[in-house]
Amino acid sequence: MDPRSADLTTVALWEGGDAVRLVDVPLPVLGPGEVLVRVLLATVCGSDRHTVSGRRTSPCPSVLGHEAVGEIVEIGAGGAAGDDGGALAAGDRVVWGVTVACGACDRCRAGRTAKCRSVRKVGHEPFDSAWPLSGTYARHLVLPAGATVARVPTTVPDTLAAPAGCATATVMAAVEAAGPLAGRRVLVSGAGMLGLAAVVAARDAGAAAVVVSDPDAARRDLAARFGATATPGTDDAVAPVDVAVELSGASAAVARCLDALDVGGRLVLVGSVAPGPAVPLDPERIVRGWHTVTGVHNYEPRHLRAALELLDRTRDVVPWTDLVAPAARLADLAGLLTGPAGTAPRAAVAP
Amino acid sequence: MDPRSADLTTVALWEGGDAVRLVDVPLPVLGPGEVLVRVLLATVCGSDRHTVSGRRTSPCPSVLGHEAVGEIVEIGAGGAAGDDGGALAAGDRVVWGVTVACGACDRCRAGRTAKCRSVRKVGHEPFDSAWPLSGTYARHLVLPAGATVARVPTTVPDTLAAPAGCATATVMAAVEAAGPLAGRRVLVSGAGMLGLAAVVAARDAGAAAVVVSDPDAARRDLAARFGATATPGTDDAVAPVDVAVELSGASAAVARCLDALDVGGRLVLVGSVAPGPAVPLDPERIVRGWHTVTGVHNYEPRHLRAALELLDRTRDVVPWTDLVAPAARLADLAGLLTGPAGTAPRAAVAP
Repeated sequence: MDPRSADLTTVALWEGGDAVRLVDVPLPVLGPGEVLVRVLLATVCGSDRHTVSGRRTSPCPSVLGHEAVGEIVEIGAGGAAGDDGGALAAGDRVVWGVTVACGACDRCRAGRTAKCRSVRKVGHEPFDSAWPLSGTYARHLVLPAGATVARVPTTVPDTLAAPAGCATATVMAAVEAAGPLAGRRVLVSGAGMLGLAAVVAARDAGAAAVVVSDPDAARRDLAARFGATATPGTDDAVAPVDVAVELSGASAAVARCLDALDVGGRLVLVGSVAPGPAVPLDPERIVRGWHTVTGVHNYEPRHLRAALELLDRTRDVVPWTDLVAPAARLADLAGLLTGPAGTAPRAAVAP
Repeated sequence: MDPRSADLTTVALWEGGDAVRLVDVPLPVLGPGEVLVRVLLATVCGSDRHTVSGRRTSPCPSVLGHEAVGEIVEIGAGGAAGDDGGALAAGDRVVWGVTVACGACDRCRAGRTAKCRSVRKVGHEPFDSAWPLSGTYARHLVLPAGATVARVPTTVPDTLAAPAGCATATVMAAVEAAGPLAGRRVLVSGAGMLGLAAVVAARDAGAAAVVVSDPDAARRDLAARFGATATPGTDDAVAPVDVAVELSGASAAVARCLDALDVGGRLVLVGSVAPGPAVPLDPERIVRGWHTVTGVHNYEPRHLRAALELLDRTRDVVPWTDLVAPAARLADLAGLLTGPAGTAPRAAVAP
């Protein structure tokens, strides 16, 4: 059945706490440049779990979910271009950037579109706004005109492509912020999906050593399978490194990364996206060590393309598919948003 | 009298605490590439005051002082090249880099010669070492082979040139670490000699605004004369900035700079070269703000040249000479190292 012909789609409407209700809603008439996408596979980002647990706020009611791969069903008047400049077409298998920017404000012009003054985000818009179908926990979503949309190479399966638009692209932004990694000693703090992607990206960039720190032994074992050269526990000493990438968001882990920096070392903070305890910073150590601490939040369009390229380059040698669980049904979403976290692969939904 | 003909020179030997004693010592026979310099004017860097007060450790006994301008008296076998590659000659008026690097270790090869594994520093070597005449509080000092030596333009007077090799060059390294300043809003924290030089460098680089924060009203007035566009007291609010350069070393000032950063903002820490309280760092703010905190300690040879160029470019429009007090005698050094700090111009010695 042509999904468009039904004129209805189904969304998992988040109504606060762990209340999620399946609702059938009409498919909208597309405006110029808008893209209607049928969701093939959506993975469950940890930030949605934080939203549902209350650790993080997001508009409510809304359709959550921002990490997915989908197929273009229809494009509004005037068409739309992909991130490579080519015209998009119905049937294209695509991923998209989380942030949709105006392109005109001071921050966009300064190259920080993720911090656009009027930024909108996939899976973060109120259901009663002008963009109700913003989330991927749905059979369809709409991408506004100006969204970053990237065609997925046919060689990259859905399980690899789904996380590209959040986890993998954010890691590519972090790796860029870390500077050249060839020959460097890299510490990756946190062996969740982002940490494992960071291991692959660092090895791919020629790092001399990639040490992964995580409190969980099973995650550390997984990190070794993803190419980590050492996997100390959080009580073990870490030899000095040139670069640390912190993805866990734990303040103690941030402090541990600071302690591990050698002269000229660079710490990229990524995981700290929810309130947490302050970390004591020793300014003298930063000065005498020529240390740099830099934050990365979301990413720019080029990082989405870099994520797809990394996945394509490494698909045969990295066990990426182990990171995504077999797809559940949309009706089972609430359980995926509230169940235990930890070493399990990332939950997925095929709506 | 040709200073070399006497075969003796006089040094102010620091013997711990505020004990400084004038001692006549033989001039050494120069090794290959060594440069004997007669000190014309030495300025008193705050770090020497910290050494004498015990806040900072340095080899003792030793000849302190590293910020000066001098005249080449003699060069060892094989000659020596200036930072511009040209051969140095007796009679050249020169300044020099504080750090002397091996040029071969991993840090030197990585472009961080200031952190050379076997770094030696002007004014920081034991008197009973292979480099007894390392300090500028003396009639002469010896620059080892491999030292950075820069000829001073004839248009730059001694009072401007003397601080170039420490205060001004360090500021040039900080400004480089801050990234392009054209059109940026800059906060300079601390209006001592380095802060005032930072104001000039930021204006020279095209900053849109240069706000100077300092607890002392007289220093703030001086900052205005050096080109500050606003001079809030430390209790006044500071509007968001793109770049902050912290030169005071006060932990509270570091925290204040962190608070002032706008999205994408960059804080360069320079002043924190002595132990002080930790500063609470909010990792979430760093991440969501795409903030960067980076430390700068000493500088690279290119920054010494940049300092001389800045001084030469601005000598007619900036009241640089107000920053240096009339030169005292070497015999009066102890008083200069222990007297009150504050708004006074930098003390100077003409040995």
